[in-house]
Amino acid sequence: MPPAPKSGDALFASVDRVNAELFTLTYGAIVRQLLTDLEEVEEVNKQLDQMGYNIGTRLVDEFLAKSNVSRCVDFKETADVIAKLGFKMFLGVTATVTNWDVEGTSCSIVLEDNPLVDFVELPDTCQGLQYCNLLSGVIRGALEMVSMKTEVTWLRDMLRGDDAYEMRVKLIKQVPEEYPYKDDD
Amino acid sequence: MPPAPKSGDALFASVDRVNAELFTLTYGAIVRQLLTDLEEVEEVNKQLDQMGYNIGTRLVDEFLAKSNVSRCVDFKETADVIAKLGFKMFLGVTATVTNWDVEGTSCSIVLEDNPLVDFVELPDTCQGLQYCNLLSGVIRGALEMVSMKTEVTWLRDMLRGDDAYEMRVKLIKQVPEEYPYKDDD
Repeated sequence: MPPAPKSGDALFASVDRVNAELFTLTYGAIVRQLLTDLEEVEEVNKQLDQMGYNIGTRLVDEFLAKSNVSRCVDFKETADVIAKLGFKMFLGVTATVTNWDVEGTSCSIVLEDNPLVDFVELPDTCQGLQYCNLLSGVIRGALEMVSMKTEVTWLRDMLRGDDAYEMRVKLIKQVPEEYPYKDDD
Repeated sequence: MPPAPKSGDALFASVDRVNAELFTLTYGAIVRQLLTDLEEVEEVNKQLDQMGYNIGTRLVDEFLAKSNVSRCVDFKETADVIAKLGFKMFLGVTATVTNWDVEGTSCSIVLEDNPLVDFVELPDTCQGLQYCNLLSGVIRGALEMVSMKTEVTWLRDMLRGDDAYEMRVKLIKQVPEEYPYKDDD
């Protein structure tokens, strides 16, 4: 029998960590650099999402290797695992899954604490910026590696005056397969 | 009497943290982005150093606020504090100070463990890349905020086949001042 999945706290304690402020400021430096190099805010949003996607396709391996999570029964269980274990393991925070549609293929993940945005204020010139697109990209990338093609968009953003961070995760296509990942991945 | 400076381990335990792999991959995404956007590797090196400098000027506040380190007597003590407390607080690793010159104004900081470079391999096209220039920039920026103007360069780099990471920190100018920082900073 495989070992039981770890708790979020145990998972977070089991990984190497670095100072959150260093991460936050480093991420801020990326965003600033992209704003300087690319002319359109919309292009910056795309680039952050793509960076996140690439990171997500790598992080999923560490997640599966350390969490003892094997395959999730369905998209609902997957969303719960992301919110309760994934966010804890990588950012040290937990998230809530809510607002399921009737088909069980769209839900919201709500974050109250978001280490990406500490000390961040958006200037007026950046109103269209999706500052946290790296995060939504990570989720999209990670899910694609376990055969779930998704769209992930931001519904609420505290940097834009909302009361929380809420991303909408919509399952577009699920490729069924016997083994969601190989042991030697 | 002010509280005694904390140990590196206590300091690291006292700060918010995120997963080191997420940080490593995020940093890798920056470097890749800069390599795509800027044509010259030398420009990428400069940009990474400048980003690090900006981050260092911010991180020094968190360091002074949390470490209970007040002012360092001289550059030697400062280098020790960076190696033993600074690296621990931000990256969770410790470093060694060595190879002092006779004037006591240049030393090496040697890292055996460097979370910035996990999983990184430099392609042949990037041979001139100073991948860790963010780190040396952070130190330069942080020291400038406590009135020490320095030059920080890499002498050894494991990504280039050396057996450790060694940066040379050279004090260029020290501006004496009664209060290196204010309580309300």
